[in-house]
Amino acid sequence: MVKNTIAIDAMGGDNAPKSVIAGLAISSVRNPGVEYIVYGDENKLLPLLKKRDNLKKVVKVVHVDDWIRAGEKASKALRRAKTTSMGQAIAAVTNREAGAIVSAGNSGALLAMSIFGLRKLSGISRPALAAVMPTVSGEIVALDLGANIDCSSQNLIDFSVMGIVFAKNVLGKPNPRLAFLNVGVEENKGGTIIQEASSAMEESHFSKYYAGYAEGNQIINGNFDVIVCDGFSGNIMLKTAEGTAKLCSEYLKQVFSSSILGKISFAIGRSSFIGLRKKLDPRKHNGAVLLGLNGIVVKSHGGADSISFAHAVDLATEMSVGNYNELIKKELNNLKSIH
Amino acid sequence: MVKNTIAIDAMGGDNAPKSVIAGLAISSVRNPGVEYIVYGDENKLLPLLKKRDNLKKVVKVVHVDDWIRAGEKASKALRRAKTTSMGQAIAAVTNREAGAIVSAGNSGALLAMSIFGLRKLSGISRPALAAVMPTVSGEIVALDLGANIDCSSQNLIDFSVMGIVFAKNVLGKPNPRLAFLNVGVEENKGGTIIQEASSAMEESHFSKYYAGYAEGNQIINGNFDVIVCDGFSGNIMLKTAEGTAKLCSEYLKQVFSSSILGKISFAIGRSSFIGLRKKLDPRKHNGAVLLGLNGIVVKSHGGADSISFAHAVDLATEMSVGNYNELIKKELNNLKSIH
Repeated sequence: MVKNTIAIDAMGGDNAPKSVIAGLAISSVRNPGVEYIVYGDENKLLPLLKKRDNLKKVVKVVHVDDWIRAGEKASKALRRAKTTSMGQAIAAVTNREAGAIVSAGNSGALLAMSIFGLRKLSGISRPALAAVMPTVSGEIVALDLGANIDCSSQNLIDFSVMGIVFAKNVLGKPNPRLAFLNVGVEENKGGTIIQEASSAMEESHFSKYYAGYAEGNQIINGNFDVIVCDGFSGNIMLKTAEGTAKLCSEYLKQVFSSSILGKISFAIGRSSFIGLRKKLDPRKHNGAVLLGLNGIVVKSHGGADSISFAHAVDLATEMSVGNYNELIKKELNNLKSIH
Repeated sequence: MVKNTIAIDAMGGDNAPKSVIAGLAISSVRNPGVEYIVYGDENKLLPLLKKRDNLKKVVKVVHVDDWIRAGEKASKALRRAKTTSMGQAIAAVTNREAGAIVSAGNSGALLAMSIFGLRKLSGISRPALAAVMPTVSGEIVALDLGANIDCSSQNLIDFSVMGIVFAKNVLGKPNPRLAFLNVGVEENKGGTIIQEASSAMEESHFSKYYAGYAEGNQIINGNFDVIVCDGFSGNIMLKTAEGTAKLCSEYLKQVFSSSILGKISFAIGRSSFIGLRKKLDPRKHNGAVLLGLNGIVVKSHGGADSISFAHAVDLATEMSVGNYNELIKKELNNLKSIH
């Protein structure tokens, strides 16, 4: 079945194709029954696959000797859709040979090629980039994280539908609470676009999930499951959170290395700190999904190692096997029958 | 002299007027020669001042028995400018009795009343809210943090001028490096407004300070001294950083309390952790400044304690005594003579 097949761009990312194949080996153990079509240079791929017994039965290699480079412009990449590993992997989803595609390659190219190749889902005004972020008590899905710099109120509503379906089916929250990212929680905060979208949510089929506005410091307090915003502020939010977490760990490292007591303290608490590092491990949240297209597109971090890439493949698998796009279509129909 | 006098709204904030007077006592020791006009209920203020010998000679109390409440709307507050402690403290700056005003009261009311009462500096298209944030290697000033939801390219250029003067004179960086907050560092990132402002900066008198775009994860890496953005994304950035820092310290607390070894580790590293907590202490960065008006307006956090409020008063003092507004006027003239 198509939904059990994932297309893989094996040539994108700093550590490709090695970490791609190693990542597939990890994900495959966690997802028995799933098959992969792997696009890339077979001279590099076949020796890597030789060592992976568990992949032999589930991987089909399609030889492509060209690939999109990291610095390449999206407009130029678009013209090379037919000849590159990224383009052919996306085409596998377009042709319904696979339900999802994963790439660690050039983000701009992947977005442009995916939108062009897969087309928008009927009823969705714009696709959005979504990712899972950690909170005090669990996880949250946030979108858009950079696919759309400017957004209309209709875009925000569509993002909300996609976010709610994601939270229900991927995060396993039957009654997700959704908030719009804003500069305050009072009704009159933010611009007219966000206020219009907010009124529309309150009057919609989704009002039961809609919790109003959330400020930047509230997104991680565990009170929400979905955060919706325009791609500009979403990107700022995601990257500021990443940068601040890094700053904190930098400060902590300084504390432990600045004195003998600090070093002893670290040695004694070592196992707890390793636990903390595991908890904060960004590799567990690797994989941003481009939602709203006829097929699931997952962008892995360009610097992904095997553990990281495996999480991106897990996410693509879960969404494809779980029929995510069919669920969105159903919710959109529900929304329209009310309005 | 006016610039050595600071007007204080003693009735704003959760802990007013107690933490206000205690904060003044701390700041006054650090800033000898500075005087304060304190607006508020003298029945509450005089007993508090009685205990503070070092304030007796430098504080003048002006009795006002009304004040702006926390939840009050800005439009309603504006009508009560003449009868409230906040309104009268701002008027002291308008009338040139003081060079700066500090309030821990209602933010929206303070912004509206200040803009209405003090008027914009000539040559500045819009005032902006600025604050100092910690980085890996020092401090950075960021603006706008929420005074303007939408910004034109001219607004961003004006914020840049104000930010550069701030970095030079308040942060003590003779050659500040300024970046616009954006979703990528390439020239074509962001919308047309930010791109226009970027081109204008490159061709301006300030090109030597202009370092291009910075992403959310780069603001704290120590490579920049000034971050300029619209008030919506700036507010998201600031609050996301606050929230994430809190999440990290929450996780850390869990590590130290989750096991006996964690507790022992904390006990041994105690002094280092206290050092870290001091370093991260948000009270040291209390005080957001509304730049671009005829007078300095400093908003203290509403929940400020005395240490926190003292930092806000320090900031107001430094900017008033240092003739910050005159320096901005000079830089604006330089800018115009080039264009």
